[in-house]
Amino acid sequence: MSISPFDHPYLSGLIGDEEAIRWFSVENDIAAMVSFESALAEAEAEEDVIDNAAAEAIAIACRTFTPDLAALRSAVAADGVVVPELIRQLRETIPQEYRASLHFGATSQDVIDTSLMIRLRPVLARLDKGLSDLVTRLDHLDKAFGNNGLMGRTRMQAAIAITVHDRIGAWQGPLLRHRQKLDALQQNFPVVQFGGAVGTLDKLGEKGPAVRKRLVAILDLRNAPQWQNQRDIVVEFADFLSHISGCLGKIGQDIALLAQGGGEIALKGGGQSSAMPHKQNPVLAELLVSLARYNATQISGMHHALVHEQERSGAAWALEWMILPSMVTATVTAMRSAAMLLDSVEGLGEGANANDA
Amino acid sequence: MSISPFDHPYLSGLIGDEEAIRWFSVENDIAAMVSFESALAEAEAEEDVIDNAAAEAIAIACRTFTPDLAALRSAVAADGVVVPELIRQLRETIPQEYRASLHFGATSQDVIDTSLMIRLRPVLARLDKGLSDLVTRLDHLDKAFGNNGLMGRTRMQAAIAITVHDRIGAWQGPLLRHRQKLDALQQNFPVVQFGGAVGTLDKLGEKGPAVRKRLVAILDLRNAPQWQNQRDIVVEFADFLSHISGCLGKIGQDIALLAQGGGEIALKGGGQSSAMPHKQNPVLAELLVSLARYNATQISGMHHALVHEQERSGAAWALEWMILPSMVTATVTAMRSAAMLLDSVEGLGEGANANDA
Amino acid sequence: MSISPFDHPYLSGLIGDEEAIRWFSVENDIAAMVSFESALAEAEAEEDVIDNAAAEAIAIACRTFTPDLAALRSAVAADGVVVPELIRQLRETIPQEYRASLHFGATSQDVIDTSLMIRLRPVLARLDKGLSDLVTRLDHLDKAFGNNGLMGRTRMQAAIAITVHDRIGAWQGPLLRHRQKLDALQQNFPVVQFGGAVGTLDKLGEKGPAVRKRLVAILDLRNAPQWQNQRDIVVEFADFLSHISGCLGKIGQDIALLAQGGGEIALKGGGQSSAMPHKQNPVLAELLVSLARYNATQISGMHHALVHEQERSGAAWALEWMILPSMVTATVTAMRSAAMLLDSVEGLGEGANANDA
Amino acid sequence: MSISPFDHPYLSGLIGDEEAIRWFSVENDIAAMVSFESALAEAEAEEDVIDNAAAEAIAIACRTFTPDLAALRSAVAADGVVVPELIRQLRETIPQEYRASLHFGATSQDVIDTSLMIRLRPVLARLDKGLSDLVTRLDHLDKAFGNNGLMGRTRMQAAIAITVHDRIGAWQGPLLRHRQKLDALQQNFPVVQFGGAVGTLDKLGEKGPAVRKRLVAILDLRNAPQWQNQRDIVVEFADFLSHISGCLGKIGQDIALLAQGGGEIALKGGGQSSAMPHKQNPVLAELLVSLARYNATQISGMHHALVHEQERSGAAWALEWMILPSMVTATVTAMRSAAMLLDSVEGLGEGANANDA
Repeated sequence: MSISPFDHPYLSGLIGDEEAIRWFSVENDIAAMVSFESALAEAEAEEDVIDNAAAEAIAIACRTFTPDLAALRSAVAADGVVVPELIRQLRETIPQEYRASLHFGATSQDVIDTSLMIRLRPVLARLDKGLSDLVTRLDHLDKAFGNNGLMGRTRMQAAIAITVHDRIGAWQGPLLRHRQKLDALQQNFPVVQFGGAVGTLDKLGEKGPAVRKRLVAILDLRNAPQWQNQRDIVVEFADFLSHISGCLGKIGQDIALLAQGGGEIALKGGGQSSAMPHKQNPVLAELLVSLARYNATQISGMHHALVHEQERSGAAWALEWMILPSMVTATVTAMRSAAMLLDSVEGLGEGANANDA
Repeated sequence: MSISPFDHPYLSGLIGDEEAIRWFSVENDIAAMVSFESALAEAEAEEDVIDNAAAEAIAIACRTFTPDLAALRSAVAADGVVVPELIRQLRETIPQEYRASLHFGATSQDVIDTSLMIRLRPVLARLDKGLSDLVTRLDHLDKAFGNNGLMGRTRMQAAIAITVHDRIGAWQGPLLRHRQKLDALQQNFPVVQFGGAVGTLDKLGEKGPAVRKRLVAILDLRNAPQWQNQRDIVVEFADFLSHISGCLGKIGQDIALLAQGGGEIALKGGGQSSAMPHKQNPVLAELLVSLARYNATQISGMHHALVHEQERSGAAWALEWMILPSMVTATVTAMRSAAMLLDSVEGLGEGANANDA
Repeated sequence: MSISPFDHPYLSGLIGDEEAIRWFSVENDIAAMVSFESALAEAEAEEDVIDNAAAEAIAIACRTFTPDLAALRSAVAADGVVVPELIRQLRETIPQEYRASLHFGATSQDVIDTSLMIRLRPVLARLDKGLSDLVTRLDHLDKAFGNNGLMGRTRMQAAIAITVHDRIGAWQGPLLRHRQKLDALQQNFPVVQFGGAVGTLDKLGEKGPAVRKRLVAILDLRNAPQWQNQRDIVVEFADFLSHISGCLGKIGQDIALLAQGGGEIALKGGGQSSAMPHKQNPVLAELLVSLARYNATQISGMHHALVHEQERSGAAWALEWMILPSMVTATVTAMRSAAMLLDSVEGLGEGANANDA
Repeated sequence: MSISPFDHPYLSGLIGDEEAIRWFSVENDIAAMVSFESALAEAEAEEDVIDNAAAEAIAIACRTFTPDLAALRSAVAADGVVVPELIRQLRETIPQEYRASLHFGATSQDVIDTSLMIRLRPVLARLDKGLSDLVTRLDHLDKAFGNNGLMGRTRMQAAIAITVHDRIGAWQGPLLRHRQKLDALQQNFPVVQFGGAVGTLDKLGEKGPAVRKRLVAILDLRNAPQWQNQRDIVVEFADFLSHISGCLGKIGQDIALLAQGGGEIALKGGGQSSAMPHKQNPVLAELLVSLARYNATQISGMHHALVHEQERSGAAWALEWMILPSMVTATVTAMRSAAMLLDSVEGLGEGANANDA
């Protein structure tokens, strides 16, 4: 055990994902925040809000920036957010006359929310690919075993015969819908957050929307007015994550039940036991259930974060920080585990495992 | 207190909704289930699955059916679902030769899930109207008070001045998005559930899809293959409910904080205290927060219900029964309460309540 | 479906409890609230806070009181609580000169929280008896089948042989601990709430504690200083409820898995299917899982209610109203269902169901 | 952001705890697991289950063991638990003839659950000290400011005057009860888990209880029969954690509201804003609310883990791994933050902050 298995040196081999560890690494976070500052300066120079020379100086500073992590850590403890100290450190590397142009008109939340969105871009690509891969894998299983008989089970009891094709259809249905939902989601996501101190871009006057539009283009995000205190944007994404892990949890539960029943499934591999070397545990099937229930638990916290008072709630916002990256990681871990689990199916349906009934 | 405030003789005056009480009344449920049976017979007769004479006899029986509630209650205790006994009672009112044609090819879950969907149709209409009304009410407030100054507040502290218009914009944003999402949702919702014993419509052979299509037309629902063990269909709707109550919870929290601060809001009415007759409690504002947190709690249970094993999970399905109607009721209660709360705003922004600072 | 199955005319036959319906009936709530007012008057007269004649008049009024429910309903909608209108109605039945003595020094929360506690007294007795009964039933099963072999299963796989006695031990362990925990809980529970407007019993001066002590004696509750904004008192009880349903959920899940496996359990009865008359569904076993997950969902909302701001939070308090009575009902329903399920076990362990392997 | 703020290089400066990072470090986990193996060998030698020479060889191996973390990581991915590979690595450092004596009669869950318990020992000490410290700090505030007037507030509205002493009493009440509850908890906690493959200590025959008793003495834990599939033991501890963070969340919410109101509180320090240098954000007060809601969310997942099927549920058990260490960390972070927040109070009650009203 570690504080989070997702960050744990060995547990993350099972309950974790190497790509997720990179997405949410401190290096990647700082790189994303710095890229926001650089893009903001560029956008503001294009709109004559700051000087071109300032934007160039800021771009150079951003390219070469090395953070003082210990100072960031102390500052977060005092300020509640990393940005004021990050800006202070960045400013020190910029010629005096351009310093005020850095972070001009922006606030901590712009940086932190947009940094999240920048890092969610590859997450979406991964979800997209992962969903398609799972659909394909299920197609392969269907081709291989679809015509086999399978005992249909309702309320944990043998009901009447179905085929493997029927069961796979029930596994595939939600995945196909989620693939479509992802397309719809990406119309407006990931999206820039840019609002300034209280969401009004007060320092930019008339130029706020134009600067934001340029920012969006540079950062390759979607455009939207500030949503700093309108968290449905983020929560809807979290819903989507929990739907993915949820439907994979059903697959995991079904496979675990098939494995318990014996006879109707043959799995390659499976986990060792320290006490019973003969056992082959359906580790990945169980893990899918755990991850589904983990996200089903977390989604509640995200919905509580919708009650985000006034122009910025430190309380509701920090709750998202504690939850969302873990939900992303649980979801891609579930997709990876489901793919491995489906790959390990060597027989499905009646007579799949003649030795085991 | 009662078991549920939503069903409570007096608490439901505040925490409840008269229309919701009708939607989820036993009469309305039985009427919806009986309408499913009647429509199924009609659809099956049109497809020559059963005789026209049988369908007519069933239609008459359904129109005149009076349930024996005590027997339904006992049967639910034994069977876990009401349908077997309901069908038994219905059959008794049908000439012997047509009895087997009633409920032909269907299963309990078809009746219960579709009955839910039939009853969700007016819920969607209510949500639609409620969202539009709230947007309009906020437009009115904006017209009346939008130019007034308001202290922008971040992290519970006075930050810099904004206008009432800015705050209202943050309240309206999610509502406008949810209106759009509702349009998208209604493309596929509410949707018939028709799968037979294990989701394969085994008794209908080739005619399954055609019967389902006719059923959909008669019942005015959306068409989809069976989703009895693919619960994203229902959970996505629950997500939507919690998003509505969540964004109204933010409005409620903001108004409660304005009311605490005094000076920037004037509310008509407000609740009496039994100990302090002078107080005017922002009862509806607080209620919006409660309802948001209630749904944020419940949504977790719905996501757990995604782990719906095999062809039908009695455990996961019954969990939905315990949660979803309450979520619907919480949501429409929140919409009703938000409308009343916004109507009670007599002043908003700087100087709104000169006596109260 | 109804808004809550616990209040539903026929669903409550399965998912509900007749005694719980009485505990949380409006009649019982009003009776408890009125008994608080009567006891308060008696206690205050004994401490010379009000006149004996007033207390007698109040006692008579309380004995003969018939509430106007429609007026209570309207008033709750306006006031957020029922008490101001209830007091108004009660006062009308009291001679003018004694009216001010009714509810003297108390506030709505005193009445509502204490009414809850009065109604939880029989709940505790029921929990006590229910836990003992379940332990006894397990003893009987142990005596009957304890020596039978049973396949020990870990991670959903056959591991090595155990006995039925071993499995029953794992079922009994938590129940025995909860019986003990209940004894500890009852040292301080159910407990009076009496604090006046803001928890300081401001109108009673020095006599506050003495009045409360007498109130406790009359109402047969535990004594404690005001806890109106210290909700651990109630949440700890909710924890206890969810522990009971949780350990019964494990029993239900185990029995459902035994029933799926066949061979090792024989159950009498079981639910009918509308599509497959031959099936015997382990309805009660599944219900135990549903109820465990229901309470596991609800407990989160109760813990959120710990964030109860200032001297009284309308938002956090109403959240409890929406959740706690349902948790009580889910728990006693689970105890009742578990008892019936255990009674239906006709064979347990190897060879229990020779026809079904 | 990182996957978990509790493990994050800079966020953990605020949302995290250095001691917690050590408790849940991989080094500390492996040390605890190895100490279990060493203690088990010692206990089994004392009971003549294994040879003294074997126990000595195992003790030496355990003292000098250096794990191959990469191999542990790969093995967890395959086996679902770290123990089989850990034992394999340990065995390699032991003379051939004693290898079979290592881990004799134990299973992975014995090692992992007991390792958790070993690491919870200092957690309990920290909770104990933390609760006492907070009570003392509140005593100091009471002494300093208790007699000051404070506006009592109910339902977010000014009600009637109380004193700072009254408010502090409401903050202290739950802390005092939790101190007592901790004493009760420690009667049976932290507790050894020792059951072997399926909870029956099948390889130890009659000597199981005696070995476990010696194990308990060596490891300084409490004794109890196996509880591997009776998770109330762990969940009750989680309840306790959420109660602590919950009552601190109320203090945080109250202080944030005082800070918003101004006038009645003076806080030293407070967080900087990147956009508004003049602001002093009540960062720690808000954090207490976040942490309370975080644990209130997580506690639901722990209660779901009560449904722990059969002799060992990989699914329910892994859910605990994902949740419990984060709950411990959130709780001690809340205690640390509350202490700092209370230390920063420079004035409380009427006139505390004359400049700010």
